[in-house]
Amino acid sequence: MSQHIAQRARNIPPFHVMELLARAQALQAQGRDIIHMEVGEPDFPLAPTILEAAQRYLAQGRVDYTPAAGLPALREAIARHYAERFGVAVSPERILVTAGASGALMLAHALLTEPGDHWLLPDPGYPCNQQFVRAFSGLPQALAVDASSAFQPRADQVAAAWTAQTRGIMLASPANPTGTLIAPAELARIHALVKARGGSLLVDEIYQGLSYGTAPSTALSLGEDVFVINSFSKYFGMTGWRLGWLVAPQACVRDLERLAQHYTICASAPAQHTALAAFSAESTAIFEARRAELDVRRRLLLDGLEALGLQVPARPEGAFYAWADVSAVAADAAVLARRFLEDAGVATTPGIDFVRRQPERWLRLAYTTEVGRIEEALRRMRSVL
Amino acid sequence: MSQHIAQRARNIPPFHVMELLARAQALQAQGRDIIHMEVGEPDFPLAPTILEAAQRYLAQGRVDYTPAAGLPALREAIARHYAERFGVAVSPERILVTAGASGALMLAHALLTEPGDHWLLPDPGYPCNQQFVRAFSGLPQALAVDASSAFQPRADQVAAAWTAQTRGIMLASPANPTGTLIAPAELARIHALVKARGGSLLVDEIYQGLSYGTAPSTALSLGEDVFVINSFSKYFGMTGWRLGWLVAPQACVRDLERLAQHYTICASAPAQHTALAAFSAESTAIFEARRAELDVRRRLLLDGLEALGLQVPARPEGAFYAWADVSAVAADAAVLARRFLEDAGVATTPGIDFVRRQPERWLRLAYTTEVGRIEEALRRMRSVL
Ligand SMILES: Cc1ncc(COP(=O)(O)O)c(C=O)c1O
Ligand SMILES: Cc1ncc(COP(=O)(O)O)c(C=O)c1O
Repeated sequence: MSQHIAQRARNIPPFHVMELLARAQALQAQGRDIIHMEVGEPDFPLAPTILEAAQRYLAQGRVDYTPAAGLPALREAIARHYAERFGVAVSPERILVTAGASGALMLAHALLTEPGDHWLLPDPGYPCNQQFVRAFSGLPQALAVDASSAFQPRADQVAAAWTAQTRGIMLASPANPTGTLIAPAELARIHALVKARGGSLLVDEIYQGLSYGTAPSTALSLGEDVFVINSFSKYFGMTGWRLGWLVAPQACVRDLERLAQHYTICASAPAQHTALAAFSAESTAIFEARRAELDVRRRLLLDGLEALGLQVPARPEGAFYAWADVSAVAADAAVLARRFLEDAGVATTPGIDFVRRQPERWLRLAYTTEVGRIEEALRRMRSVL
Repeated sequence: MSQHIAQRARNIPPFHVMELLARAQALQAQGRDIIHMEVGEPDFPLAPTILEAAQRYLAQGRVDYTPAAGLPALREAIARHYAERFGVAVSPERILVTAGASGALMLAHALLTEPGDHWLLPDPGYPCNQQFVRAFSGLPQALAVDASSAFQPRADQVAAAWTAQTRGIMLASPANPTGTLIAPAELARIHALVKARGGSLLVDEIYQGLSYGTAPSTALSLGEDVFVINSFSKYFGMTGWRLGWLVAPQACVRDLERLAQHYTICASAPAQHTALAAFSAESTAIFEARRAELDVRRRLLLDGLEALGLQVPARPEGAFYAWADVSAVAADAAVLARRFLEDAGVATTPGIDFVRRQPERWLRLAYTTEVGRIEEALRRMRSVL
């Protein structure tokens, strides 16, 4: 029986960083000291408040299914978070708890995407977005963005790219791989034009809270019709727990809840009970201290890259990535990344995973490792260049 | 902006049991004593071995993303489980760790289902299967099965229902809602005919290990081309953790791994590390003792239902459900379920969630509550009848 493989599952580009990661691990196994700047996961341990909440939950000795949309107490806690931190009123009913932002993106596209629908996806962007669209037989349309607009789309570009087939647009702010934010006024213009065209606006706010200089904001303040994706993975440091959420228009909630019931039963119960501790004042103090630490790393890395001749044309004001143009020092970022790894033990991510246009120009560096290691990485990269 | 909702998300039937559950909870909140026989989740607490493993993992203080296909050690442990318990050699590479059987079913259909593909689904069956097929714009085709073949399809029925549009068939053994097993010889015949037609055979073994009288078996012994779904939810008692797995043909592994990378990043890390303890001798002793307890409950319930005039036409040899024909005592199972709940405080699931043909005839009762409560439930149901 040679199985028929569906179109969506064929020819998915691999994450090239995975091969690089495997090679980095092989070098490490040989005793080489590798500095990891390739992974989208900070090196911080579990926050003590999170760890204690998890232990407390486990100690009661039961781990049952939860309601499909999430524990009511967690949905209420997220709603309060929006009210207190952003001054935005969001009914807990509109919040669906999912297995990471990944689960939220899957659910949103299950709701919205018909076979043949086009979605506008800024390029560079998070590579999985293409596959969420393709999962439901939609067609991702790359919307080229550049440093002149901080790698975020402008409303006029969206208007020009919009066609009768376009179902909607996906944005992320702060974004991966660039760490850039979209300007609130530009986002409002995009929202208005998407609305006028009867489309859907999905804003991925997974890096919300990790911004430096600019106070965090939410697209939910634009109106109830925006779909917002978020996660406990990044600001809250809960990657491996697999917990996130989707905020949806009230009119879609019942359909989303049924989809979630059937597709997932529920998100992880230990993760949900643990996440109840994520919004406390003590937790916030820990996360804010980590944000400050990330900001120190960010400045260090940005200055260091500039000194090396690796240009970062749009200053990252969020997340934990720098998106560097290597064309002044190397013809091919993939070759450079390979040399950084082999010759200097520094793991980075070449652009090919994130961008279609001129991937050979770009390198993503994550400042997810401590200051001393970043300094060492900069020294080592200098020796290669 | 009134959002466009995709076809797959419209008109999904709700789980009727949810309304019943909400009503049961409301009655409980009013102080009524409710006996729960509606939920597919036994009342056992976390096994001590599982709890300890979870606590040990947490104590090391990090919860990071894992590889998309799962922790290598867990994939190896599952492979060893197949070798030791079933004498079947399965390469760990062919095992993908997922968010429950739910995640495995989603992944399998993402791999296999093109828009317009037909899948044969035994009716009665697990209702979510229809939505996994519809997620990828496939068309579920109900294959009516009855008590004469223990509510499992016969090869001749499959052959008769197969058309040029049929992509494959989904089976479950032990099954939900009937608790019945498919005869190995019949399964082999179905496998041969699916193979001859170039289709795919998906066997959901989520209730594997929970069989009474018959030794557990696996469809993997039929050949490498069968897709097998499994989970830590039922035999291993880990429902809320959301952990399961998919065993796939070697040729599909790379595509599945890429889909999983993009769609999920990985399954819950705490769940994966905890599940490493699920196959130990101590854990098995606990799970086998629970199985023995479930068997006692099963016999009690079956005898009790017969005495009440609720006929169970195909004796459940697995899972933890009885599928009862109520037509001798009531015209409509949904009305009867409502009366059991309102008048007697016994929550059960009417057939409508599981079967298209004559739903009014059927009631599912889960023996997921202890013996004393089942005895009490039987007394209370008698008072209603
Ligand atoms: C922009 C963006 N969206 C979504 C995700 C998915 O993350 P998770 O599923 O852990 O919440 C990531 C992960 O790196 C990301 O960078
Ligand atoms: C037949 C069957 N398959 C799959 C599932 C999904 O279970 P889980 O995702 O918890 O593994 C269930 C849950 O009741 C089931 O009965």
